[in-house]
Amino acid sequence: MNRKKEAAGKGTPRKTRTSGGTYFVIMAGGKGERFWPLSTGLVPKPFVSITGKKTLIELTVERALRIAPLERIFVVLGREHLPAAKKCLPRLPRGNFIIEPVGRDTAPCVGLAAMMLHRRDPDAVMVVLPSDHYVPDPAAFSRCIRETVKTARRGDHLVTIGVPPGRPETGYGYIRTGRKISAPRDADCFEVARYVEKPNLAKARRYLREGGYFWNAGIFVWRVSVLLEGLRTHMPDLHAGLLDFYKALDGGDRDRADAIFAALSRISIDYGLMEKAKNVLMMPAPFAWDDVGTWTSLLRVLPRDETGNVLRGRTVTLDTDNCVIITDTTPVATLGASNLVIIASKNGILICDASRAQEVRQIAKALGKKQ
Amino acid sequence: MNRKKEAAGKGTPRKTRTSGGTYFVIMAGGKGERFWPLSTGLVPKPFVSITGKKTLIELTVERALRIAPLERIFVVLGREHLPAAKKCLPRLPRGNFIIEPVGRDTAPCVGLAAMMLHRRDPDAVMVVLPSDHYVPDPAAFSRCIRETVKTARRGDHLVTIGVPPGRPETGYGYIRTGRKISAPRDADCFEVARYVEKPNLAKARRYLREGGYFWNAGIFVWRVSVLLEGLRTHMPDLHAGLLDFYKALDGGDRDRADAIFAALSRISIDYGLMEKAKNVLMMPAPFAWDDVGTWTSLLRVLPRDETGNVLRGRTVTLDTDNCVIITDTTPVATLGASNLVIIASKNGILICDASRAQEVRQIAKALGKKQ
Repeated sequence: MNRKKEAAGKGTPRKTRTSGGTYFVIMAGGKGERFWPLSTGLVPKPFVSITGKKTLIELTVERALRIAPLERIFVVLGREHLPAAKKCLPRLPRGNFIIEPVGRDTAPCVGLAAMMLHRRDPDAVMVVLPSDHYVPDPAAFSRCIRETVKTARRGDHLVTIGVPPGRPETGYGYIRTGRKISAPRDADCFEVARYVEKPNLAKARRYLREGGYFWNAGIFVWRVSVLLEGLRTHMPDLHAGLLDFYKALDGGDRDRADAIFAALSRISIDYGLMEKAKNVLMMPAPFAWDDVGTWTSLLRVLPRDETGNVLRGRTVTLDTDNCVIITDTTPVATLGASNLVIIASKNGILICDASRAQEVRQIAKALGKKQ
Repeated sequence: MNRKKEAAGKGTPRKTRTSGGTYFVIMAGGKGERFWPLSTGLVPKPFVSITGKKTLIELTVERALRIAPLERIFVVLGREHLPAAKKCLPRLPRGNFIIEPVGRDTAPCVGLAAMMLHRRDPDAVMVVLPSDHYVPDPAAFSRCIRETVKTARRGDHLVTIGVPPGRPETGYGYIRTGRKISAPRDADCFEVARYVEKPNLAKARRYLREGGYFWNAGIFVWRVSVLLEGLRTHMPDLHAGLLDFYKALDGGDRDRADAIFAALSRISIDYGLMEKAKNVLMMPAPFAWDDVGTWTSLLRVLPRDETGNVLRGRTVTLDTDNCVIITDTTPVATLGASNLVIIASKNGILICDASRAQEVRQIAKALGKKQ
């Protein structure tokens, strides 16, 4: 239907308009534990207003819309998250929600979307975005993605984006760059020397000092044909499994398709492909970025008041500093509070030492058991 | 109506049944600021479930009911608190709510009730109770009140109850006892040497060490005729004002009555009468008592869990100690919280350092301004 619309609307031959287009694949999901009580199992982080009024997935789609029309923006997600996703993205065509039968980490997810796009447009360029990251400057983001798409379209590379580290972060994986290969007038582009697991603090400090290390932001750009060739070479079981999956689906046997997908190994695209392939490039991200991994990260990414608080909703703060306070309806008042995360929603109220926001998932688990 | 019922029901002459009866006068009111967000201007502390499921005024009436029938229990309150009071005490006869036209501290309040009782039963014995104190052992309380009533009935004394201090409390006034005057087999009874204002910590410690000092619990027992005589002698303006007030009321001129009451001086019964009168006695209270002055006082009076928390409602507490957590409907989860008061209600959510609960009224004021 979308193709027809385009062809009808612009009067150009369908093939030139749709072949080699740029498509976005946004990966959505999660357990909703780290951002309890705003997020829950059915409404995890991407579908929640963490950084402002809009949900993170809404903001992600808006960034993609600077480059591609809505018809070329796809969201991969579990069936259980479809109601939340539709609520956030009411204008996204129903067919652009790609349902993963079960979550099997990013490699099957990316492969599922790539094979679908390849059947539609074998020359497609595919941009893979996480749905729950924070990018305060969408213009800088889209300039960078455009450059990355150019690089991906003209070569046979798996291109990823690396964020220049601003601090010795131990919560992210790193990419160690190799040779710079870009032409002088082009955007910077590096070969990848190696992928680095989340480091300890000493190592993270060394990476920052030495330079040449970038945060792995989980953003990938490639021609779908290049990606599928990479999967065929480095993850042949996954590649074969996905072919079987679509074969079953084409034959109308959804149960079999689901069973095939469920049988795929749980593995990330970084570990399964990027760390093994030789044709990986990295382009540095000239934009601010944060994965907003915990409530406390809001102290880093959002504007603070004069005593260092991040406040949203009706609040009264007396002698209160370095707190994150978010409330959806009920007023929250604090007196003598320091370094706390306070989140109030209809699901529950969280009061958490700011240094321990990583452990919030324990609360979600404990409440889950109680219910 | 109540009198008729009694006379009809028991078949005894009306006079013997109603003359010299024991009546309770419960003083209710407040601004609702210290127990925000559960209490508010319209629903202050007595009408709120602070210590458990029942409201403090309900518990107070239940204690009185151990001694007197409901018909002889009166509640003095401002008109604005009548809806909240009726909700807490649906069985109290409408006529037993005595409306104070405006709040003028305890002396006019007590005088208002005493004069009303005197017109009804000149030999009445009147027990004055605050409506918002915590008494965990009602049986011990009622034994003590019975003894006190006996003492008041047989003499011409203004009797008050003194609580043996359990700690060097600086938030209460003290009573210094004089000569012990009780007969050997009677309950202890002392003359009062003097009333002592809220002391500093050094003085409070000394009182505890020296002995002979008792907390002023604001509980009084006297024959109404003795009280009125005391007012006539030591507070003649108030006495005359109250006579005028009832005269205006008898003449059907409510506006004039209200104006007369409003013109009364704002003064407490302790300051205006008890500190001046020579016929004051004090009986020690052999029951646990607390004025529950702040949220933090709940750490003192209510049972704590193994990590020292007082919890009510649905809570999940991880690494949490010495906190008061009360929630009416929404679950509250804490992680790494210490020495906090956390109160959640439909009016708002409070997070307060436990050592600063005295300042909660500032929050209520700040919110009042914002609204």
